[in-house]
Parts: sequence; structure tokens; C-alpha cells
Amino acid sequence: MKKQDLVNAILGERCSLAACRDQGRAFAPTNIALCKYWGKRDAELNLPQTSSLSISLGDKGALCQLRPRAQSDSFSLNGQSMALVSPFGQRLKAFLDLFRIKHDFYFQVDMQMNIPYAAGLASSACGFASLVLALNDLLAWGLESRALSILARLGSGSACRSVVPGFVEWRAGSSADGMDSYAERLDENWPTLCIGLLIVSEREKPLASRLAMERTVATSALYSAWPEKVRADLHCLKKAIKEQDFRLLGETAESNALNMHALMLSAWPPISYALPETLTAMQSVWKLREQGLLVYFTQDAGPNLKLLFQAQDREQVSAAFPSAEIIQPQLIE
Amino acid sequence: MKKQDLVNAILGERCSLAACRDQGRAFAPTNIALCKYWGKRDAELNLPQTSSLSISLGDKGALCQLRPRAQSDSFSLNGQSMALVSPFGQRLKAFLDLFRIKHDFYFQVDMQMNIPYAAGLASSACGFASLVLALNDLLAWGLESRALSILARLGSGSACRSVVPGFVEWRAGSSADGMDSYAERLDENWPTLCIGLLIVSEREKPLASRLAMERTVATSALYSAWPEKVRADLHCLKKAIKEQDFRLLGETAESNALNMHALMLSAWPPISYALPETLTAMQSVWKLREQGLLVYFTQDAGPNLKLLFQAQDREQVSAAFPSAEIIQPQLIE
Repeated sequence: MKKQDLVNAILGERCSLAACRDQGRAFAPTNIALCKYWGKRDAELNLPQTSSLSISLGDKGALCQLRPRAQSDSFSLNGQSMALVSPFGQRLKAFLDLFRIKHDFYFQVDMQMNIPYAAGLASSACGFASLVLALNDLLAWGLESRALSILARLGSGSACRSVVPGFVEWRAGSSADGMDSYAERLDENWPTLCIGLLIVSEREKPLASRLAMERTVATSALYSAWPEKVRADLHCLKKAIKEQDFRLLGETAESNALNMHALMLSAWPPISYALPETLTAMQSVWKLREQGLLVYFTQDAGPNLKLLFQAQDREQVSAAFPSAEIIQPQLIE
Repeated sequence: MKKQDLVNAILGERCSLAACRDQGRAFAPTNIALCKYWGKRDAELNLPQTSSLSISLGDKGALCQLRPRAQSDSFSLNGQSMALVSPFGQRLKAFLDLFRIKHDFYFQVDMQMNIPYAAGLASSACGFASLVLALNDLLAWGLESRALSILARLGSGSACRSVVPGFVEWRAGSSADGMDSYAERLDENWPTLCIGLLIVSEREKPLASRLAMERTVATSALYSAWPEKVRADLHCLKKAIKEQDFRLLGETAESNALNMHALMLSAWPPISYALPETLTAMQSVWKLREQGLLVYFTQDAGPNLKLLFQAQDREQVSAAFPSAEIIQPQLIE
């Protein structure tokens, strides 16, 4: 099993029962990709076809508390007990199987998330990242963020970007063992950057993003052009962030998201995460831009939009989208 | 001017006043592309980046009646006088400038169209095709369909597919003078094939398809993959038509249309001809397919859908889309 090999290679001699503490605890922010991760080159190791770039959402994310247990795992989310057989429960259990330091070693996982679950805000990203950080604390691994990012990636690809704050680049890497595919923080802050969560529907996704990715890579005739698009967008985003060029950031992020959704539309059977309300919201954004307001959007594998704008335009954006929840991810740093 | 050179090369000695009759008259069907024409390699000569394939809609189209006039052109559409300065009037006049056989030679053009104008049913395609066929009649050129197709192409790219009935392939060609880029009828009939016109909005297009094409080719990072997609789709469509394999026809046509719209979504600024109602209609089609009904759609540069299905399913499709106008384009042939 490649996953366990990778974990063993990273942890080496670190996995000793003697080092285990009474509890581990860590917070990880959720993240929104400005250049998307869409398509894997290795499904077991969550190795991506391309690099990607995200912004971590400050204090929005998951707080994970871990305790060792003698008999069977026990999970809770926001104070509610979670069944081991639920989809998220099964993923957590399978992930923890990689880290049991002896026979009959189990975990109590208590997770608190302060993000709206239905907003498509990558709850699995911050969930797995916080779990890895809490494991690092509980088992006193003393790992650096690069190794922690690789471990988080094994839980959920985009989780590797949630082990650090700020702007984060996940380098795709090229090695087969997955040791060079991890996320790193970019050394830039942008305190006036705002994100508005525009929830148009709280319905469950009709298709898991993992399956949508697989189908896109397998059937879209346009996918062959995606890696080059990502290379160009990553260049523009890094330039935009360095120079705080908001127009370049917004155009690149919106174009990147629309290209990802274009790929899905070009798959067979076609995939559309957009609802009629999504299209209406996009058209509102485009109309506001025509009127001179610098507001852009990005969209993940769901119907909701994340608006991108600057603090100076906060009031106007709020007036146009009264239901949007506004976050200024780097204000407090 | 390359256009006039091409016209002269085709007409040769044919343009004599002596041959001119009292009137010319011709009908041309409109056509719906099953494999789309999207992107030009030469804007003046309407030379396409790729080949395309359409079905001509039987007796739905334009009937053109032409008479010579001594003073200024005069146009009417469906009995209503059309201003020379209207957008269509200007295009007609510029096109007719290519064919004036002497100084002070003008045309009276009376056109009747029996297609819903707002349905995105390529009224310029059948309009220019019927005009060229009527010129051939009026001026007694005696041209074959290949030459007529090239001339019609100069009026509107997709008009070159409307000079013949049935399934039609427009071969892209490769020469710079445009002499090898014309449409030809495929030697196949499919009497049970049905098309349903689903009009979700009669609003004018927000962006002319010519401009949308230009923007797509200039800015879409995914466009580089389109020619290969077209090659594959043309192969599948010809196979489907030959073997009357409706599932293959429907899947290929719908996928081709969605790939074209994906390209537009990936352009900058993004282009979306879909309205919220368009998305709702697509989702209805997808749901009907999940329930086992073989119905597909194609979409052109507008919000309306054209449903594709077989005569045996006509009642079920009508029940699901009561407002759809149903055409059986090859029933009468």
C-alpha cells in the first residue's frame, strides 16, 4: 500500500507509544483555491495533475481535539456524535488507520468547524489538515509543515493547502512516491482582500468532486489544454499577489474557475454544478463589473459562489448581495 | 479585396448583363449544426478553423425573390420593408456589392422566412443561401452546388451548408483563397429523426456570434483542443448517420455543443448564452435520459435548445416539453 509506505517514510522512528501525550489539539483554516486543483495523476496518493494556489481563510476552519482510546474510534463534529459508518466517518477512520502506533490503539476525534457546512467551503480540507496537526501534537512528531502537508494530502488533496495560513501554493511535484507534492506559504499578505460567501443553495452536491474530477480527466477532450492554462494562471496570480494588483487577481481567479467548470461541461456525461440561481448570480457580478465595480467570483464543485473584492468596495458588494457573508482573511495577521 | 477576387474566380465570364432574367427565385433550408462551426481562420473569407456537419431543416427556411432595379437596392422580409441601414440590410447590401454586373445595377430582394426568427435558427444561413441560389437563377450563372456553397459562405459562414438539403458536411479546406472550403450533402437519409425547437427566451442575443467566435479564439486557453474534438465528433456523427445509431448521434451532438459553450465560458470576458431557463431545460433533458428516454439537445449562440429525438418518442417529448415545435426534417424526402 503506497499510502502506508509514504507515512512510514515520513514518520520514520517518530511513531513511538512512549511519546504519546494525553491529548493533541490544533486548528487549521479552510482554504479557497484561486487556481484550482482539478484532476489527479495518482488517485491513492492524491497526487495532482497540476499545481494550485489558494488563500487560507484566517480563523475560519476546523479545531481538532484528539485523545487516545483503548476501544474503537469515536468521532464528533460540532458537539454531535458522528457515526463511524457515515461518509466522513469512514474517511476519517481509514485515514487514522495509517497512524495507529500499536494494536488496539484508537482515537477520540472532536472537531469544531466555524464555517457554513453547505457553502462548499472545503470542510474536508480544514478537517483533515486540523487532524494531521492534532496528530503531530498528540504523538509529538515534531514535523515541519512540508511533511504535515504531505500527510494531510493523503486525507484530502486540498487539505495539504490548509496546514498553513495566508496565500498557499501546492506544488504538484513529479515523483511517484508523492514526497515532492506539498503546499507552501507564499511570503505575502493582502489585508484588504475580501471574500464574500454567496450561498445560492444548501442542497447536497449531486456528484462528489472526486468523481467529477475522474470523469473530467477521462472524458473531456479539452482537458489536454488545462495544464498550460494552470501554468499561465499561477504566474499571473503570483504576480498579482506580489504587486497587490487586484484586477489581475480577480480576472485570473474567475477565469480559472470558469475554465474548470468549462472542463466539466465538456465531460461526458456533462457535469454542471451550476443551478439556475448560480447563473443569475454570475450575471449580477458581470453586470456590476460593467458598471465599474471590481468584483469577481470563484466557484468550486458546488453551486455557490465566492466573491472576491477589496475592502473599499465592501459596502457596495453588500448592497448588491445582502445575503453574502463577508470574510477578510488576512485582516488579523 | 480577397472576397471580390474569389467571386470573380468563380463567376469568370458568367457575369453578363445579357443573361439577366426578369426575376430569380429560390428556396434554401435553414440548418442546425450537429458538429459546430466555431472559429475562423480567415475573417474576410469566412474560412473556418475546422470542418462542421449539419442537418438542413426540410421546408423550413427562406424563399428569396430577386428583381433587377435601376435605382438603389430595396429589401423586404416577410412582406415588411427592411431599412438598408438595419444590421441585416447592411449585410445584404455589402454582399450584393460583390455581384453588380454594371454601374447602377441594383436589386429588389423579397425574402420570406417560415422559421421562428427568435429561435436562433440561423436565419442568416438560409437567408444568404437563398439569396445566392436566387442570384444563380436571376443571372443564369448555371453554377453547381459547390460553387454556390462557396459564394453563400461569403455572406455568412454557415450559409454554405444551406445550399443543399439533408445531412451536410462543410469541409474546412486549407487553401488561402477559400476555393476548397465548401459544403457537400452526405448521401444518407434518416426519416425518423426529429428536432424540437425549445424557445426559452425571445430576447436578442447579447453578443453577435461573430464576436463571440473571435473572442473565443483569441482568449480561450482551451481552444487549442477544439480541432481534435471536432475531428473525433465528425467521425462519430458520420458513423451514427450511416448506421442510424441514434444514441451515438445524440451523445456526439450534445457533447459537441457543450464543448463549444465550454470554450465560450473559458474565454475572457466569459461568454454565456445560457439563461437560467436554459440550464433548467438542460437539466430536464438530463433527467429524462436518466429515466431512459433517448432525448438530447444542441445549442447555438443563443439561449434556446434544439432537442434531438426519434419519431417513436415524439409523444413523450411533447409531454415533457409542451411548448416545443417539432420538425421531422427528412420525413418528406
